[in-house]
Amino acid sequence: MKVNIYDIAKAANVSIATVSKVINNTGRISENTRLKVLEVINELNFKPNIHASALMGKNTRTIGLLIPDIMNPFFSELARHIEDLAKDVNYNVVICNTDYQSEKEREYVELLIQKSIDGFIMASGFEDIEIFEKIKAVNLPVILIARESPSDSLYSISINDNEGGKIGTEYLIQEGHKDIAIIARDIWTNRQRYEGHIEAMKKHGLNPRPEQYLANNSSFIDGYNSAKKLLAETPRPTALFAFNDLMAAGAVKACIEEEILIPNEVAILGFDNSSISEIISPPLTTVGQPLKDIAKHSVSQLIKSIELNVSPTGKEFLKAKIIKRSTV
Amino acid sequence: MKVNIYDIAKAANVSIATVSKVINNTGRISENTRLKVLEVINELNFKPNIHASALMGKNTRTIGLLIPDIMNPFFSELARHIEDLAKDVNYNVVICNTDYQSEKEREYVELLIQKSIDGFIMASGFEDIEIFEKIKAVNLPVILIARESPSDSLYSISINDNEGGKIGTEYLIQEGHKDIAIIARDIWTNRQRYEGHIEAMKKHGLNPRPEQYLANNSSFIDGYNSAKKLLAETPRPTALFAFNDLMAAGAVKACIEEEILIPNEVAILGFDNSSISEIISPPLTTVGQPLKDIAKHSVSQLIKSIELNVSPTGKEFLKAKIIKRSTV
Repeated sequence: MKVNIYDIAKAANVSIATVSKVINNTGRISENTRLKVLEVINELNFKPNIHASALMGKNTRTIGLLIPDIMNPFFSELARHIEDLAKDVNYNVVICNTDYQSEKEREYVELLIQKSIDGFIMASGFEDIEIFEKIKAVNLPVILIARESPSDSLYSISINDNEGGKIGTEYLIQEGHKDIAIIARDIWTNRQRYEGHIEAMKKHGLNPRPEQYLANNSSFIDGYNSAKKLLAETPRPTALFAFNDLMAAGAVKACIEEEILIPNEVAILGFDNSSISEIISPPLTTVGQPLKDIAKHSVSQLIKSIELNVSPTGKEFLKAKIIKRSTV
Repeated sequence: MKVNIYDIAKAANVSIATVSKVINNTGRISENTRLKVLEVINELNFKPNIHASALMGKNTRTIGLLIPDIMNPFFSELARHIEDLAKDVNYNVVICNTDYQSEKEREYVELLIQKSIDGFIMASGFEDIEIFEKIKAVNLPVILIARESPSDSLYSISINDNEGGKIGTEYLIQEGHKDIAIIARDIWTNRQRYEGHIEAMKKHGLNPRPEQYLANNSSFIDGYNSAKKLLAETPRPTALFAFNDLMAAGAVKACIEEEILIPNEVAILGFDNSSISEIISPPLTTVGQPLKDIAKHSVSQLIKSIELNVSPTGKEFLKAKIIKRSTV
């Protein structure tokens, strides 16, 4: 038997008017009541013959994009591609800078759910899995980008970060390096890359250096400061592998200041293949992420989810590869 | 006598229900009818005792940010500051990349008006003044940034671009340069800067070079290509003045490739003081724009406009100043 609005009202122990308000997203109603009604709608699998977003009262044709920092060129490029692709299908993008802080992520998610946006694309640090439960509870699709999903019920499109750390390290070893220092901060993606690095070192019988997660953050200046420390050590590493291009650019600057020749005295390998890698001199050798493809998959999967009311699941991986320029 | 909803219906020759739909932004209604009703609301100066945005049915606490390209670090930094400041007062930011194309600007404005956003912050090429008429017609506040307003009835917060071109050129002359080439594309702000450049050259009895607006666009590669052309000329200019830092970074790269010493053989001056100016080597001397202050003024003026239902007018200017680093 098909579930109707009366069944929802009864099960949620509220009036039909309240259910209608939730469905049409009109009138004043407490957030608790709203969530309760939405939960029952999910539980009873109530599906009006309309879009998932229309279930929320209207299709706002707006998606929320949560990224750590638009000033990191990797994310500004991703944002640009995502916005262009969304515009092609008449969707707008709300941009949210989270600095990888769970607190900010949670605030943005709550705010955007209230505004009845149609779905989320998130490049998240998300140690905090609750956030996704919140999004699922209101039946909104979410696409994770640039990081492997922490759960099989959430769709992600990314490279395999362990593999990225591995191929970067393999390439440096192949170029003759035995003493490779990592420049990274302690976040989930970097832990995967670091593991890949360790695996590659061990495979070749080499010892990883003791320092881990030297950087406090992921900015240019963090890369510069970390490199300064490493360049002062004895023995000095012969290669610096930074887990984003911005930090690698900081390492390049540190070497230039110290008059250390790149790549002859110290090689530098970045990660991302963002625009900055071609702008600096010498141009950066880097582990490239296919960011146009990540943007394309994320937008098309999200729009499909919104318009067909299906939630994609599973992890999709794209290939990372070495982009050779002049720093290794 | 206070105007009420009946007066609006009569003057617009529509039913009260239609006016209510427009005010509450509910129900199906043609865009023409909606605009007609909104025009009458403006004409009769109908002001319910609520926010300007509430006039549209609800306060979405969302602002539209139109910028040419989030991949230009000047605009990604502006966007980051604006988004942070907006979040502090619980507003979200919809990001729109216009590439300085009037067509795209118009499309975005129309789309966002339909979505009942509360106001606009625009860094626009706007040769097309009609866009602003459209925004004013629906009684939404708009703040222009990073460019002087083309009309006294529109508020702008920016530097004086003519002045920026002048102080950059004066600085190069003071450093001994007589043959200064400009790297820029043909857009409104650059025309003001170019005029300032010409005025400074003439004041010192120097001849401006014949080339104008060498670049087709404002990207790194445009700066690189323009510099390559200029460096091949006889006589070769002793200074290159690029009208954004990204193009200046392209010029730096061209000099490095040609093994031309910076600043001894060719000086390079940028414009903006965006993050890229510290990332590249040698770090860039540039005409700095106070971008945090531009962001701050734009957000506080917009929120004031939205919440007090007043439209700011007039042009506000902040000071540009030379940021000395190593390329001049």
